[in-house]
Amino acid sequence: MKKNRKTSGIVIIGNEVLSGKTLDTNSNFMCKELFNIGISCEEINTIKDQKIEIVRKINNFKSKYDYVFTSGGIGPTHDDITSSCIAEAFCKKLVLNEEARKRIAKHYSDDILTKARLKMAYIPESATLIDNPVSVAPGFFIQNVFVFPGVPEILQIMFKDFISSLDHGDRYFKKTISTILSEGIIGDYVSKIQNKFLNIEIGSYPYFKKNSFGVSLVIKGEVESEVNDVCNEIFEYIKKEKGKPQIF
Amino acid sequence: MKKNRKTSGIVIIGNEVLSGKTLDTNSNFMCKELFNIGISCEEINTIKDQKIEIVRKINNFKSKYDYVFTSGGIGPTHDDITSSCIAEAFCKKLVLNEEARKRIAKHYSDDILTKARLKMAYIPESATLIDNPVSVAPGFFIQNVFVFPGVPEILQIMFKDFISSLDHGDRYFKKTISTILSEGIIGDYVSKIQNKFLNIEIGSYPYFKKNSFGVSLVIKGEVESEVNDVCNEIFEYIKKEKGKPQIF
Repeated sequence: MKKNRKTSGIVIIGNEVLSGKTLDTNSNFMCKELFNIGISCEEINTIKDQKIEIVRKINNFKSKYDYVFTSGGIGPTHDDITSSCIAEAFCKKLVLNEEARKRIAKHYSDDILTKARLKMAYIPESATLIDNPVSVAPGFFIQNVFVFPGVPEILQIMFKDFISSLDHGDRYFKKTISTILSEGIIGDYVSKIQNKFLNIEIGSYPYFKKNSFGVSLVIKGEVESEVNDVCNEIFEYIKKEKGKPQIF
Repeated sequence: MKKNRKTSGIVIIGNEVLSGKTLDTNSNFMCKELFNIGISCEEINTIKDQKIEIVRKINNFKSKYDYVFTSGGIGPTHDDITSSCIAEAFCKKLVLNEEARKRIAKHYSDDILTKARLKMAYIPESATLIDNPVSVAPGFFIQNVFVFPGVPEILQIMFKDFISSLDHGDRYFKKTISTILSEGIIGDYVSKIQNKFLNIEIGSYPYFKKNSFGVSLVIKGEVESEVNDVCNEIFEYIKKEKGKPQIF
């Protein structure tokens, strides 16, 4: 029953994440969107703005996963080196992309088209542009590597718009049951259930709210009826144990 | 002038992060704390609750970095497999740690010491416990691998308490200048300054606030006077360009 599901890896590029200055929310956004269309995210890797690291990582991920998504390092400044690294990983030249240049020149037509801004029009040869409706400077993809900017407000709009093209209707089926029982109490039971249904993945996540705590069990699978069956079995058990189950 | 700075890598373990269910804030917390005591975080890797992946990653990171920090997968449920994977990576047995068992038994003395709860007392042999003042079940370290839980409220207190022991007073020096000029306008100048001062790392980060936007330039280095010199030079330039510089 296992589908031939597409896999992906995310590469977050930026010293500001590794120094703790910036909380990376881009990978979470991308993971959610990928999950929603049924593409499995296998790994997230946050690395420095360093050429050798980026080239090595891209080469590794592009042969490992169906899709590779990167975020960060395609802006106008000296520390934005992602585009040239992607070019190197694919043994391509980084060239002035005429379409990207036009878009950027038009956007800044009442301001200065500085060397820094023009830098954003340099794209690996043979890459395809990804539209940026917010600040114009495009992302791009080459083979299975998809390159997005790091600013969340821009990435989110570009990513959401773009990945609909990768949607093959290959959804996961997922249900969540919450209970006021703690992990330590229901852990043994959940472990047994997991061993009984090997096609289903059960995640156990404790939660802490203001005046309560408990567990959310996430039941995920390829076949809707199987997810429902496991969900119902767990629901009945928790009800019997007076654990106040709720299904979402 | 380059110090022999200690390096680290962070491994976040958990399907819930890769499915987008959970926003990982643990790596950001750890990166900030590490930066504050001058330990460089070179890489963050988020991986699945899968034995082969965890063992491989730990083996890779423990030989690559001075310190490896993990978060997640040491709770009471079936999907908590980090401890056994760390044991395997170090070719050690996973054994019932008497001290951990005592602490957990005492904590749950008015409740049931289930098999699931007792699972948290199984620690690789020869590992040293890391205290957990919140929910008792300890973390541990073995050689250069430091193992923390995934629940942020618990990780934060344990991590902050523990890493003070790794503080060798090897601080970075850092200053931030903000300006209302955009990256596209000051990018060329910043690039020149970066090339002039190769001991200093300048990061350029655009910001967007309600009614304004601009750039934060983060100037980081090993020697305080060098950071101050570069900072002053940039400050004077931005002032001349009417970019309203502010130093933090």
